[in-house]
Amino acid sequence: MTDAGRLAAFSDGVFAIVITLLVLDLRVPEFHEGELAEGLLGEGPSYLAFAVSFIYVGVLWLNHHAVLQRVRGTTPAFSSINLAILFGVVIIPFPTAVLASALADGNTDDLRVAVVLYAFAASLMSAPWWVLFAYVRRHPALRADTVDQEQVRVQEARPIVGLILYGLTGVLGWLVTPLLGLIGVVVMIIFHGATSQGLRHGLWWRRRNAHRS
Amino acid sequence: MTDAGRLAAFSDGVFAIVITLLVLDLRVPEFHEGELAEGLLGEGPSYLAFAVSFIYVGVLWLNHHAVLQRVRGTTPAFSSINLAILFGVVIIPFPTAVLASALADGNTDDLRVAVVLYAFAASLMSAPWWVLFAYVRRHPALRADTVDQEQVRVQEARPIVGLILYGLTGVLGWLVTPLLGLIGVVVMIIFHGATSQGLRHGLWWRRRNAHRS
Amino acid sequence: MTDAGRLAAFSDGVFAIVITLLVLDLRVPEFHEGELAEGLLGEGPSYLAFAVSFIYVGVLWLNHHAVLQRVRGTTPAFSSINLAILFGVVIIPFPTAVLASALADGNTDDLRVAVVLYAFAASLMSAPWWVLFAYVRRHPALRADTVDQEQVRVQEARPIVGLILYGLTGVLGWLVTPLLGLIGVVVMIIFHGATSQGLRHGLWWRRRNAHRS
Amino acid sequence: MTDAGRLAAFSDGVFAIVITLLVLDLRVPEFHEGELAEGLLGEGPSYLAFAVSFIYVGVLWLNHHAVLQRVRGTTPAFSSINLAILFGVVIIPFPTAVLASALADGNTDDLRVAVVLYAFAASLMSAPWWVLFAYVRRHPALRADTVDQEQVRVQEARPIVGLILYGLTGVLGWLVTPLLGLIGVVVMIIFHGATSQGLRHGLWWRRRNAHRS
Repeated sequence: MTDAGRLAAFSDGVFAIVITLLVLDLRVPEFHEGELAEGLLGEGPSYLAFAVSFIYVGVLWLNHHAVLQRVRGTTPAFSSINLAILFGVVIIPFPTAVLASALADGNTDDLRVAVVLYAFAASLMSAPWWVLFAYVRRHPALRADTVDQEQVRVQEARPIVGLILYGLTGVLGWLVTPLLGLIGVVVMIIFHGATSQGLRHGLWWRRRNAHRS
Repeated sequence: MTDAGRLAAFSDGVFAIVITLLVLDLRVPEFHEGELAEGLLGEGPSYLAFAVSFIYVGVLWLNHHAVLQRVRGTTPAFSSINLAILFGVVIIPFPTAVLASALADGNTDDLRVAVVLYAFAASLMSAPWWVLFAYVRRHPALRADTVDQEQVRVQEARPIVGLILYGLTGVLGWLVTPLLGLIGVVVMIIFHGATSQGLRHGLWWRRRNAHRS
Repeated sequence: MTDAGRLAAFSDGVFAIVITLLVLDLRVPEFHEGELAEGLLGEGPSYLAFAVSFIYVGVLWLNHHAVLQRVRGTTPAFSSINLAILFGVVIIPFPTAVLASALADGNTDDLRVAVVLYAFAASLMSAPWWVLFAYVRRHPALRADTVDQEQVRVQEARPIVGLILYGLTGVLGWLVTPLLGLIGVVVMIIFHGATSQGLRHGLWWRRRNAHRS
Repeated sequence: MTDAGRLAAFSDGVFAIVITLLVLDLRVPEFHEGELAEGLLGEGPSYLAFAVSFIYVGVLWLNHHAVLQRVRGTTPAFSSINLAILFGVVIIPFPTAVLASALADGNTDDLRVAVVLYAFAASLMSAPWWVLFAYVRRHPALRADTVDQEQVRVQEARPIVGLILYGLTGVLGWLVTPLLGLIGVVVMIIFHGATSQGLRHGLWWRRRNAHRS
């Protein structure tokens, strides 16, 4: 086991770049003289896709931050699983751009394809988080002193929920209507944001108590 | 409360990328053989917009740097507010590109739209700074030992001033003339740069005195 | 000899950006209404090239991480060799994009050129790693306490193997068939990933023993 | 005076991004089936411009690294001067792209313009380094213990030499022939690389002696 400092620095770099690259898809519209305002309004869907993906990457960073606080170091296997997580993070701008493109130029079929792609990508991205929590559960030496077995098991449930619900969201978006899939994705991102907070609040409470006793 | 190291690293990454991405809008002009010089001169407005936004992001980094020096750690809420601040930083290249585009290809109406967009974005970006200072004021445990309640309250006034004055700048740019809005934006950036310095000088003085006593 | 902290931070930044920039080549296809799905499927080769290069850069990072753990500091010469290594890392997106382009739009001749370029670049990239290990071998003061002369000598063999085998892969891809070259590149990346792990496992074993005794 | 850690991290981020962004100008040529090789060879000047700028940014990083090792902390003024230095670093991809463009598509007039722009930018970039060394000389408290007044004064001469010689290079490239300017730029970059090393060797020697006594 070696220090996780460089792992954190490398991961922070990737998160920072991904969250910033999203802005590159906010293109200045081509416009005829005097019609810049219309052009900007026509790009509305891009702005929506940008905002959703920014919050998504931000939530993933909060979760990643919370995980690394709970481990004491890294191993080659842990670093490799982390790379798989980053793979999922790095590709987010792509389904985002596809979604923005479908919202702007596509018909309902295209929107369905784009929503399913987004949900499918989000579903697959949950898998390495599951592997990570399972790995930490089976290697107790990696865990920081304040974290117990039970907390890791609870965490392990979250990516499984993500895998299933994002997948279901994609299926709904495909079979029923893209809008439903879009709403599902937004709900899931909020869920991940909220539970990451919940977990941490739990930990604080424990720490505070440990402090008092 | 946990260590703010990764928060700083992630934020530094975002600032570094944004300030560097600005250069991507300095495109090499297409030119006919022998007319590169004319082409470059025609891109003048892009260079102006680039320089203003570089200084803007630089000033924001100096301010962010000053804030993180004054706190002892982070909480999930603090991290989330920080993400909202970074959201504002990340989008700067977009109104910058719109402004450059309007300066190069637009008429007065387009320029008005671009200036108002820039001022509006800058005004909204002030809001999470306000929330941040209010949060630090209400959670004294977060403050570093050298910082007192009064200093935070003074800081809280700055983003409110920004919110109002950037907004006013947008209104002036809309009602009177875009040029006035443009000047207003530049004045505001200088104001933020100067007061960030002022604050820190104040703190040094305190520290030096604390050192002597 | 000075602390290698900034060297690691700078290198991590470069690795993080390169691995993230790869996604920029996953372009949203232009599509006629209702044909987004077909457009996405047509971009298949790009996705393959992206995945291979992501794993490649990830493996290089794991190797770089393993090297810096084994040294105690840096010298200007060490920093310069590191820059040469980063040069190799930074250019990876280029042969990747050429490969994706040849897979999508080229005939067998173009694919041959692209595979040879990829293998040639990978072969050349091995050279500064060789120089690095030779430098560390000749400057024992740089080595961390846990690393002995023998371990460095073993490491030195790996980039030489890479230089020769990537080169051979390029020759095979040229003389026989591009597909063979493509397979060779993938095999080599897996080899580098596996041996980086192997080396580190060896080190753990030593440390664990050292711990016990 | 506050810790220079975040200043270093932010600067490293900017250097890492700039050095990596250079690769974005290595575009895959558009090609007819079977003509990829010809297309790639036609991009030769881009590769040259890329290599020169990579080495340039690398040398600047080595110099920046050497400066921050010699100071104990930062002040708002020092941070602001550092931002001016980074401004110079960030714009390097632009004259690089102009140069590549002129080499590929321009005539002698265009090349002259591009070389003068490159030399002019390099000349201006030297100015904030001069200001930085002068600032450190006048604020001895900032200096690390191992650095004396004389060493800083010697350093101060280097950016002045750069300012004058890069400027002269531009003038020669304009009046005589662009090729001379191009050679001058390459020579200057090598000079900066070599002297950055020389300075540090000097310091090591001092430290080693200090160690012995």
